Parts: sequence; C-alpha cells; structure tokens
Amino acid sequence: MADRRDTRPIMIGSVPVGGGAPVAVQSMTTTDTRDPVATIEQVSALTDAGCEIVRVAIPHADALDGFEQICLASSIPVVADVHFDHTLAIEAARRGAAKLRINPGNIGSLERVDAVIDAAGAADIPIRIGVNAGSLAEQYRDKDWPLAEKLVASAVSFCEHFEARGFADIVVSAKASSVASTVDAYRALADNLPYPLHIGITEAGTSLAGTVKSSVGLGILLAEGIGDTLRVSLTADPVDEVLVGWEILAALDLRRLHPELVSCPTCGRCEVDLIPIAAEIEQRLRTRRSGLKVAVMGCVVNGPGEAREADIGVAAGKGFGLIFAHGQPLRKVPEKEIVDALMSEIDALEDG
Amino acid sequence: MADRRDTRPIMIGSVPVGGGAPVAVQSMTTTDTRDPVATIEQVSALTDAGCEIVRVAIPHADALDGFEQICLASSIPVVADVHFDHTLAIEAARRGAAKLRINPGNIGSLERVDAVIDAAGAADIPIRIGVNAGSLAEQYRDKDWPLAEKLVASAVSFCEHFEARGFADIVVSAKASSVASTVDAYRALADNLPYPLHIGITEAGTSLAGTVKSSVGLGILLAEGIGDTLRVSLTADPVDEVLVGWEILAALDLRRLHPELVSCPTCGRCEVDLIPIAAEIEQRLRTRRSGLKVAVMGCVVNGPGEAREADIGVAAGKGFGLIFAHGQPLRKVPEKEIVDALMSEIDALEDG
Repeated sequence: MADRRDTRPIMIGSVPVGGGAPVAVQSMTTTDTRDPVATIEQVSALTDAGCEIVRVAIPHADALDGFEQICLASSIPVVADVHFDHTLAIEAARRGAAKLRINPGNIGSLERVDAVIDAAGAADIPIRIGVNAGSLAEQYRDKDWPLAEKLVASAVSFCEHFEARGFADIVVSAKASSVASTVDAYRALADNLPYPLHIGITEAGTSLAGTVKSSVGLGILLAEGIGDTLRVSLTADPVDEVLVGWEILAALDLRRLHPELVSCPTCGRCEVDLIPIAAEIEQRLRTRRSGLKVAVMGCVVNGPGEAREADIGVAAGKGFGLIFAHGQPLRKVPEKEIVDALMSEIDALEDG
Repeated sequence: MADRRDTRPIMIGSVPVGGGAPVAVQSMTTTDTRDPVATIEQVSALTDAGCEIVRVAIPHADALDGFEQICLASSIPVVADVHFDHTLAIEAARRGAAKLRINPGNIGSLERVDAVIDAAGAADIPIRIGVNAGSLAEQYRDKDWPLAEKLVASAVSFCEHFEARGFADIVVSAKASSVASTVDAYRALADNLPYPLHIGITEAGTSLAGTVKSSVGLGILLAEGIGDTLRVSLTADPVDEVLVGWEILAALDLRRLHPELVSCPTCGRCEVDLIPIAAEIEQRLRTRRSGLKVAVMGCVVNGPGEAREADIGVAAGKGFGLIFAHGQPLRKVPEKEIVDALMSEIDALEDG
C-alpha cells in the first residue's frame, strides 16, 4: 500500500480532513430537509453507525429553516448541498453549515460563484468543489476528450478561480459512474492539486452493484494513498453507505470502527450451519468499538490454527464450539451457546 | 487500467485460463459431497448464476463416489479440493476432476506431492498450487518475514518442484485474509512466475464485509492486470460469490454477464418513483445474457441525451415513459407498462 498523499489540511466543523488526518466517512440524508424531525432522526442513525460528516440537500428556500434546526441538533458537522441557486448556498453558510458543497459549473455564472465564496469566507467554512460527469462546465461538456480529462480540467480551473479570489479552504471531488474514469480523474487531481480529495463513485444502483463498484474504485484510490474523505453512494438506506465506507477502510487496514471478523467460507468439511452464527456475531460486533480480531471458523481441526492471528475466535464442530485465542483452545461450549460465549470473551478482552 | 499480464495458457476442462483468456468466475459448493443430489443441485444453481468453474471439497474417501457423480452431472468443470490425504487427490483425478487443488504444504511429504503430480499428468489435468496463510509449508511458517514473502517463497518453491518433475500445467494462488498481504503476494507472484493466477481473499467474512474486502483486493489486482480466474469467498450462499465476482469484473469493464444498467440519481426534476422501476429492471436483467447497455432515467427532457451511450433506455415522465435508443426517442408507453415495454425492446435487440 502506498503512503498517504500529503495535502493541505482543512476543518469540516470539528473534523480534520487532509494533512494526514484519518480518512473521514461521510453520508447524505435522503429525507426531505423541510421535515427537520425526520432528517434529525436520520442524522442520528447515521452518527450511531459511524458517520462523521453528513450532507443535506437544500433544493428550495423552504428547506433553509429545517436545515438550521438540523445543524443545531446534529452532533456531527452538517454540509449543505446546493445546486443551481447560489442564494441557497449563501443562506446555508449563514445558518450553520460546516461546509458548502457546490458544483460551480451549474451555479450559473462566476459572479454567483464568487458570492458563494465570499459567504463561505465570512462564515469561515470550506467549500467542496464537486464536479461530476453529469454537470460539467459548458466549455468542457462537448470537448472530444476522455471524460476523466474533462472532469480534471473543469475542477482545476475552478480551483484557480477560487485561489484568484483568495479562497483556498477547498475540498475537491470529480465523480463519474465509471470506475476507470473516476480513478483516472482522481489520480490526475492528486498530481495537480494540493487540496484534500473527497472520493466516491456516483452510482444509483442496487446495494450489491453499488457496494462492489465503490469498493473497487475507492479501494484502488486509497491503496494508492489518494482520498481524504469518502462517501459511498448507494440507492439504499444511507446507513448502508456508512457501513460500506468503514468496511472499505478496514479492508485496507486504514481505520477500523469495530472489531474485525474473519470467517471461513464453509466447505464440505463444515459440520454446522455457520452462516447464521457468523451473521449474528457480525451484527453484534457492529456496535462494539475496539480493534480486536475475531474469528468464526467451521472446522475444529484447522480453524484454530488457520485463525491463529485472531485475538479470540470460535471453531464450530458438530453440536459444540471450541473457543480459542491466538490459536490455543480455551474451552468447549454447546452449539446454542456459541454466540453468547464468544461475546462474553470479547467483553472480557475489551474490559481487560 | 493496466494491460492484462501475459501468462501460460491452461485448460480447466473446457474453460481456458490465462494466456489472454477472459477472467473466469469460480465458486465452491458448501453441500456435503457425500450427498451428490444436493451438491448437483447447488452446482446447477451456481451454473445458472454464471459460475464457470466449480470446486468441491473431498474431505474423506466416502465422498469420492459422490464426486464422480457430480462430475458426470455438471455442465461446468469440477475441481477437486483435497487437503492432507494425497490418495484422495489421486483418486479424484481418476474419477473425473477437471483440476486438482492442493496445498502441497499440507500433503505430508514431497513424495506424496509427486504421486499427486503423476496422477494429474496421467489424467491430463492441471493442478492449482494453493498456498494460504493458514497452511504454509513448515520451513516458512515460523520465519520472521512478512506474510506475503512467506506465501510467495512457498508457492515459488513448489512450482520449482513441479517443474523439476516435468509438470507445468499449473495455476497458482496465495491467499491471505489481509487484503494488503494478498495484494503484495500476488504482485510478487505475477513478477516471478509464468503461470496463470487464481485470485481471492480467504476468510473474507460475511456478505457485507466479504463483498467489500474481495472487491477491494481483487479490484486492485485486476486493475493492475493481475488475475486469470477469481473466486470471491463469502460466508454466505455461494451463488452470492458468483454475483459479486461478476460485479467486480463489470466494475472494471473487464467482462459483463448481463446487460449493464445505468440509472440517474433521481433529483428535483423527477416526477415518478424511479427507484422501484430501476430495481425491477435490474432484477430482470440479471437473467439476460448480453452486453447491452440499458438506461433508466427520471427526466424526459434530459434523460435520453444524458444516456445517449445506452443501446436502449426509458425516460420516465408523469404517467408515461419515453423509450429511446442511443438518445433518439422511439415511442411513449403508459407508466405501468414501462418495465414490460423496455424488456420487450431488449428482447428484440438481443434476438436481432
């Protein structure tokens, strides 16, 4: 894995992004911002799941009152997502946004972009310049260039405009629905810009396709040291976006939110129904906050040895489970007590 | 994305692997091999889902009769997975295995490995040398090297042994449950060996964690041109392993099993509930076998133009859908006929 790319540091509310800070996990609410109660509930669920920065769309002026309430109620920084109407971004900056996300290409004119920059400057908050394949600035839209080059040229020219206005409190994103185009675009952004990068694949598909696409694309970038904050986009409950985001970081040993579960893929040698046991343990581990490595294996002969790097684990045999630690057996428990026994061993380790 | 790495070609039954062949998708049965009816049913379900090579564990001699029946009944090549007991591998080669998978490090002695090599040679089938973190050859197990180096040294030394015996019909794998170790190991194997590589992350975990880990790890390798056949290991229904495997290949535009669905992220202009329409179309597309690109858009004004690269698509308006091809409108249909109308256009294109 490559070293993390060095970038300028920024703050999104209390969360540092770039400059060596941990890669922050974001999501976006799907509720109507005009319904602050529903949105605050969703922000709370996202926070519980490990979301560190949350984005809220402000499509109309009548969403601004709700936005202000959401910012006050949220324990994590709230980002205002605004398209087309620069006055909404300006007002969101006044009402508590921890960051603005705009695509300068669809704000209408550079004068309007300047008004947004000045509002962010006055509120002392950063702006994400978020270009994407669907809304390129006009001068790039019809160029016969690879998509990644158009995205990068558009993002870089906006950065230059922001800098000329004396504003450098910038995060940049350039998302496409193609993994290859997105990876190419972010590699070029990383080479050409000093700002932290917000990475993601735009994808409105099912959980499965979106999870795989995001994992492949963000995995490639993060393994190259590129990416300072991430959002996984899924057409699903946004809590799933947070879970997938953390799993991507965990897969690369960049960060972990909860204990790691390793489990064998079960084979013809397995004598118990391991899948529900592993699923139940995974579910329970999700609410824990420690760096333990937990193994669930389906073979008492090979399991403990194969999972000797695990802090604690269980190897399931016919009618019983063998609890082990670092490959060494501890005790046998009846099959129906496997989950509880393993969790109480985890409790002991987390307390101890 | 890097060019595919060049390797020696081998045949697993009728499926070419390496030497420029498409990356083949594998899975492994979870049924008891002694129950050939259940195993044959699972092989059939895996085949329907797009599995191209299936592996079956042979843990005991009493699984050999079932294995022979499974090989006869399967329409895809069946690989015998054998640990510890070399006589099972020898007998599986005689009874119809399209490939043997052994970990020479746990077969007991090089003489026993030689007996397996000779049996594979007599049956004219390849062997996968499958080393993994859990069962390294003794001389490497306790070395103070990074895991990836131990895996690679072990795999390379077994390859040299096979070559010395005149056997080069080899596929190699070196799986760890750590993405970083697995990626490092395969990069070194790709640099050091001419054989096709079977890639996978072992003990990847349950559906969500395993899908993410496999997508990240195999995505990084495939984007670098490494990997000739893949297996996603999940503690879940193996059909899911096949679906995830194909989604990884599709995410990198390497292969597609079924038509690609692009759908817009719904926005303020969208006048219909697009998500269930897109989900229904995606579900139906899963059973189709063509390379069509299908668009489901939520805006009749911009949708056809934004999806002009799609072979066929629908833009949904209030109460109707506009079917279009390559950005050009074809016909309008009532909202409740959108899915059926689009699918019949897809039928016509697939037949034509």
